[in-house]
Amino acid sequence: MQTRPRLEIDLNIIRQNYTYLQSVTASAESACVLKNDAYGLGAKEVGTALYQAGCRTFFVAHGLEGANLRAVAPEARIFTLQGYGTEDEALFRAHNLIPVLPTLSAVENWFKKPANTQMPAIQVETGLNRLGISLTEAAALQEKSFSLILSHLACADDITHPLNQQQYRRLNDFKKIFKKTPFSLSASDGIFLGKNFHFDVVRLGAALYGLNTAPHLKKYVRNCMRVTAPILQIKTVLPNESVGYGATYQTKRLTKIATASIGYADGIFRSFSPNGALHVCHAGQIYRAPIVGRVSMDNITCDVSNIPDQILNSITDITIIDDFYDPDTCATVCGTIGYEILNNIGHATRYQRIYIK
Amino acid sequence: MQTRPRLEIDLNIIRQNYTYLQSVTASAESACVLKNDAYGLGAKEVGTALYQAGCRTFFVAHGLEGANLRAVAPEARIFTLQGYGTEDEALFRAHNLIPVLPTLSAVENWFKKPANTQMPAIQVETGLNRLGISLTEAAALQEKSFSLILSHLACADDITHPLNQQQYRRLNDFKKIFKKTPFSLSASDGIFLGKNFHFDVVRLGAALYGLNTAPHLKKYVRNCMRVTAPILQIKTVLPNESVGYGATYQTKRLTKIATASIGYADGIFRSFSPNGALHVCHAGQIYRAPIVGRVSMDNITCDVSNIPDQILNSITDITIIDDFYDPDTCATVCGTIGYEILNNIGHATRYQRIYIK
Repeated sequence: MQTRPRLEIDLNIIRQNYTYLQSVTASAESACVLKNDAYGLGAKEVGTALYQAGCRTFFVAHGLEGANLRAVAPEARIFTLQGYGTEDEALFRAHNLIPVLPTLSAVENWFKKPANTQMPAIQVETGLNRLGISLTEAAALQEKSFSLILSHLACADDITHPLNQQQYRRLNDFKKIFKKTPFSLSASDGIFLGKNFHFDVVRLGAALYGLNTAPHLKKYVRNCMRVTAPILQIKTVLPNESVGYGATYQTKRLTKIATASIGYADGIFRSFSPNGALHVCHAGQIYRAPIVGRVSMDNITCDVSNIPDQILNSITDITIIDDFYDPDTCATVCGTIGYEILNNIGHATRYQRIYIK
Repeated sequence: MQTRPRLEIDLNIIRQNYTYLQSVTASAESACVLKNDAYGLGAKEVGTALYQAGCRTFFVAHGLEGANLRAVAPEARIFTLQGYGTEDEALFRAHNLIPVLPTLSAVENWFKKPANTQMPAIQVETGLNRLGISLTEAAALQEKSFSLILSHLACADDITHPLNQQQYRRLNDFKKIFKKTPFSLSASDGIFLGKNFHFDVVRLGAALYGLNTAPHLKKYVRNCMRVTAPILQIKTVLPNESVGYGATYQTKRLTKIATASIGYADGIFRSFSPNGALHVCHAGQIYRAPIVGRVSMDNITCDVSNIPDQILNSITDITIIDDFYDPDTCATVCGTIGYEILNNIGHATRYQRIYIK
């Protein structure tokens, strides 16, 4: 009997997703976004796989992340999307990280005291209104050299949204100022808006990891993640008993409750209750076990009354995430997006973590 | 200019909370619950502080966590609440961890092949219906020796809930079987249900870390956590522009938007938008900056239009969590409980983490 849950990450599928996405964006360079420890999946392992697959441009958020990635991507360009953090100055210096600078003052500071000899990148504002230099401000920078000019789409997962074309037009206004500099606009969702959205570099993130960033298309990338947990106990609970914290669930009849050794400590949202389900997989069949009671820190209780005892007796584990119930599906039930599901599961520290290579 | 957010954890306050909670439960031993890396706050640092404060009984969830804690708690008893996970057999052996066994078969397996010479503990079922041996089953175990018999309350944060007394009565039925064994029922919330709920060992967790586990009382423990983030950019956005993903927020007038370098990658829930706020702290004053647009992976945008420029020009950081906006408050806004807030922030890996000793 084991107690720790298991997280499997299939690096082959991430590589396959990369190859497919490259084919969609063939006219541009396909860079990979490994910020936030590759969305929690492990920048070292994912970075190794993508570097082997030929990727030579990576994006992370902070200098610290760039330094970690450098160990497995020795010859790559590594951009830091949050700019240049002076707390990581030594890392920018040692690892030749390229900051994506969001403001005029950040540009000034870099050129006054650069941490390395790389040409910095800049982020420009086209309508997300988050980070970036405005068109008016950019005029002051036209004499400077940048390695990349980058902007980010707000609504690229909705192909009909008028902001897409507006951001595209606004970015082209910057091209009039920076005629010779490479440009980048699209992340995983933007690449399906048309070839003109690809510019010189596309930044592949969520779709690499199997999230469906283009809901208008049939799912075009594969899920790379599987989460299972040991069943610690199956008990038969009398009618009119409650299950879990706050006694939010009452049994109506004799109910078989399975307790899985996984909880929100392992990145499974509390909001996975009351509408989520775990699944018993046995001999090619999938049996649904609805969650009953609240998700607690270390455990989830589910109703396995409809699953035959002979099957329950032959299994040790229950499935939380797999291809038939992927992070996007789980996210919908939890009231969030797949990105946050990957993030929370990926940051959890108690998994038996298995990389399929 | 820095880019990574900061997380301060005040170990003195955790120690003070421990001392206060000890005074409430003086007739019982005050054990500390450090499962899930001390709810994300760092089992090594928090364990060191509590061991120095005199705690000699700890609870974790899994063997792996027990092994990590052992490094700073050499002479303590360490119980593993999820039982005995054979994947961590070597750790149970090397670190004398005491499993809390939830089933008859787990007890049988342990006595057949124990990983160490410790007397195990058992968890018994009194009404949470999650993990534990039933009263009927327990009769078969009365000849065996256990170090502790433990159960867990479902509704202890609601002093009026009838399940509290029912679980208390049910646990006393087990006392008739195990007359000489120490008992434990209450966690941080149960200790306020009356002295009879204390039994021999109370298990202090959430309240140590400053969460209010007894909403019927005035807050009796202190928040130990502070989260701040660099402001990367403040920009003035024209009316009728949108901010953030999905263009969910539209400016109605000229709006000053500050972009903080923190997001759900750093454990700040996406559901913190649309009702959450960040705060500018300056010269003893606190200025509210409502979140506008969605929380993204690395950034949060907020409206600072009502904060004077001279103040904005003099600050570099913005506050997400502090005493005046503590994890419980943040949790209410996000639709969860403080436990999950601590968990998510604590697991995030990009913070500049500062322990106040």
